Amino acid sequence: MNQTGIRFSKKSQRTPESPISYFMEQALRNPHLISLAAGMVDSGSLPVEHISATVSELLADPKVARAALQYGTTQGHRKLRENLLTHLHNLDGVDPRQNHVSVEEVVVTTGSQQLLYLLSELLLDAEDIVITEAPSYFVYHSVLQGTGVEIRTVPMDEEGMIVETLDELLKSLDESGDLRRVKLIYTVDYFQNPTGLTLSSERRKAFMEVVQRFSAKQRLLVLEDAAYRELRYDGEDLPSLKSMDANNQNIIYSGTFSKPCSPGLKTGYAMLPADLVEPLIRLKGNHDFGSSNLAQYILNHVWETGRYHTHVAHLRDVYRLKRDAMLDALQTEFGEISGAEWTSPHGGMFVWLTLPEGTLTGTGTPLLRAAIDEGVLYIPGEFGHIEIDGKKPRNEMRLSFGDATIPMIHEGIRRLRVAFDKSNLARIEKRGLVSSAI
Amino acid sequence: MNQTGIRFSKKSQRTPESPISYFMEQALRNPHLISLAAGMVDSGSLPVEHISATVSELLADPKVARAALQYGTTQGHRKLRENLLTHLHNLDGVDPRQNHVSVEEVVVTTGSQQLLYLLSELLLDAEDIVITEAPSYFVYHSVLQGTGVEIRTVPMDEEGMIVETLDELLKSLDESGDLRRVKLIYTVDYFQNPTGLTLSSERRKAFMEVVQRFSAKQRLLVLEDAAYRELRYDGEDLPSLKSMDANNQNIIYSGTFSKPCSPGLKTGYAMLPADLVEPLIRLKGNHDFGSSNLAQYILNHVWETGRYHTHVAHLRDVYRLKRDAMLDALQTEFGEISGAEWTSPHGGMFVWLTLPEGTLTGTGTPLLRAAIDEGVLYIPGEFGHIEIDGKKPRNEMRLSFGDATIPMIHEGIRRLRVAFDKSNLARIEKRGLVSSAI
Repeated sequence: MNQTGIRFSKKSQRTPESPISYFMEQALRNPHLISLAAGMVDSGSLPVEHISATVSELLADPKVARAALQYGTTQGHRKLRENLLTHLHNLDGVDPRQNHVSVEEVVVTTGSQQLLYLLSELLLDAEDIVITEAPSYFVYHSVLQGTGVEIRTVPMDEEGMIVETLDELLKSLDESGDLRRVKLIYTVDYFQNPTGLTLSSERRKAFMEVVQRFSAKQRLLVLEDAAYRELRYDGEDLPSLKSMDANNQNIIYSGTFSKPCSPGLKTGYAMLPADLVEPLIRLKGNHDFGSSNLAQYILNHVWETGRYHTHVAHLRDVYRLKRDAMLDALQTEFGEISGAEWTSPHGGMFVWLTLPEGTLTGTGTPLLRAAIDEGVLYIPGEFGHIEIDGKKPRNEMRLSFGDATIPMIHEGIRRLRVAFDKSNLARIEKRGLVSSAI
Repeated sequence: MNQTGIRFSKKSQRTPESPISYFMEQALRNPHLISLAAGMVDSGSLPVEHISATVSELLADPKVARAALQYGTTQGHRKLRENLLTHLHNLDGVDPRQNHVSVEEVVVTTGSQQLLYLLSELLLDAEDIVITEAPSYFVYHSVLQGTGVEIRTVPMDEEGMIVETLDELLKSLDESGDLRRVKLIYTVDYFQNPTGLTLSSERRKAFMEVVQRFSAKQRLLVLEDAAYRELRYDGEDLPSLKSMDANNQNIIYSGTFSKPCSPGLKTGYAMLPADLVEPLIRLKGNHDFGSSNLAQYILNHVWETGRYHTHVAHLRDVYRLKRDAMLDALQTEFGEISGAEWTSPHGGMFVWLTLPEGTLTGTGTPLLRAAIDEGVLYIPGEFGHIEIDGKKPRNEMRLSFGDATIPMIHEGIRRLRVAFDKSNLARIEKRGLVSSAI
């Protein structure tokens, strides 16, 4: 008996296939492919010994062990939340007594991705507007598409989001009566995924000025996605937007253990304005009534034993070399290509490569096919863009130095150059500009 | 500056506060309270040594360790999914070669709660209908309320859901043209939360006959929540509804490691009709792109080393004694109360107590206040009911023998009887039937 098909929900119908999942699975399935695509972290430096020792110590105390293996609360392990708040204060150089964020405003989630999802679910209906950077994090765009909201974007330069353009956008929305539809501004303000760009110190102040000015009319919420913040390889840390949100009214700060510790524990966290907390936890209660309690106990112990800081310091050294390798390889392979340019991130795991105008990088293009033939994978830049008037840049790509080793990074960029040449050649041949003898 | 309030999404506004979260937190905060309320598992038998040994072994192999601490796939660890499918085949006595469910139709989730949530999100819009048992699992009702669907219910007796009534309900929905609105039937068919009742062998066949008959017109999906299945203390296991779904068209089977192993690992799983899998994973990708990979590796190793089966066999012995203790205590304390009756579950962790007509058990009632004064907590039965014509039973309660020890179970039921007497006395006094001298 063949029964009828399923009528899926409107939300399900709106939700696009995630490009990232596809590329992550490609990388997992084809071990000979050099993946500069997926956002995997460096495998070689995963904290195997730290976690192993931590779990042994943790489970040696029967009382603690039982608490860790039992259900926790939906909001998350209290000690971990306390430690995370202290951590944020330390990073920002803020006196905890002067700060308006308390442990009651810290929530633990299943990776920071769940926070992004829950927050969208908490705030957004189809008639709302969300402002993101152009380009922005692909998976978050997919979440937003599931909600049906209108996405407006603000371009970036070397100093991150161009705040003047944000100001103009908000002004024009205010003039058209649409300011009240603006529910959220999303920024990955440290070593952005996908570009590697960071919101500069000056821009942070300007950004907060704009947000607070418009908030006098209509309270604006900002999701500050700081997933990569602790993976900084040069220069000094910059204070978070959260630290400038003196009354805890506008900024939702989102952090994660996936990048600076281990994605396998899938634990993220957020510091939120007080009035968002209870409604968010209510939704999370329906999702899972709390993320893995054992993972939270492990991370808290990794934290309290100082292993976390030791590990992050080590990671910075590991990734710095990989970042340098990628920038060197790009200089070697693409330095002489007119119109090719790339970002030089001070942290994170991504470099954004722009190829000469007309070089298409997307799914089904000669370049992507040639790249896979040569054995290298990247993320097409167009996944990070929203179409404006039917158009978006199609000559960019995200390159990750997260998981690939240094020799693989060199070899991967070399293969990419070969693929670039071959696809260019094919293009030129197609135009009949090259004799068949070549 | 005091800024304006937030305009939350329609979904957030529809989502009620979860009664379970409140009671779980009460129990965590008041250690002297005997909680017969929350669905915590037995703390004393949590598999501390098993997990500790497992993690040591797992992380001793650097290659495996790195895979466990890295990102996994959204669908879940493949070996674990294979083992779970074999497990289901073994439980059901099904020849894998004869079965139409493959490893591609197994999905791992953050506890079975996440599966319940994702499935609702996948299928339901506000105009749809979901059929549940009366009473049913409180938290799932809360999820459904968040979607805005219409909830229709089917009563239960000692053999579980009354399938004749389901048949009549579907007929009447068909006649009114509403059959196409029926997106899901939800059943907890083993030792139900909250009643402890199990769908009998005969009823299972009748249920599948009804589902398949109506599916010739309009394909019906059933969520078979088998969370408590493996915690059986008497008699033989019954085949799942899934095992009778020969073409893998109608039944979504949901299982979990939380009850038979450890809630702290927050890992559940489902076997689904093939056409639901990709759209479900797409949504899950936006939620978290995969549940904790380390938890999945741990559970797979607990599985492959045989520790899982050893542990479940041990748990059955532990819980059987606790179930017996609760039934004994109820007989001692409430055996002579006319109109008081309770279920005698063959597994799980819940007993459903019905008090004499007129004895209100809900929030704010004299009985619940007296119970907290005496130091015992239960879940009011009305949380499990949906109002029909403005009415629902209000004289029932869910009693859990999950976390309380045997002496606590006896003492808790004794306190409950004291609270029952005091609240009854107060009621009689209020009516002026008792002299002030008493």
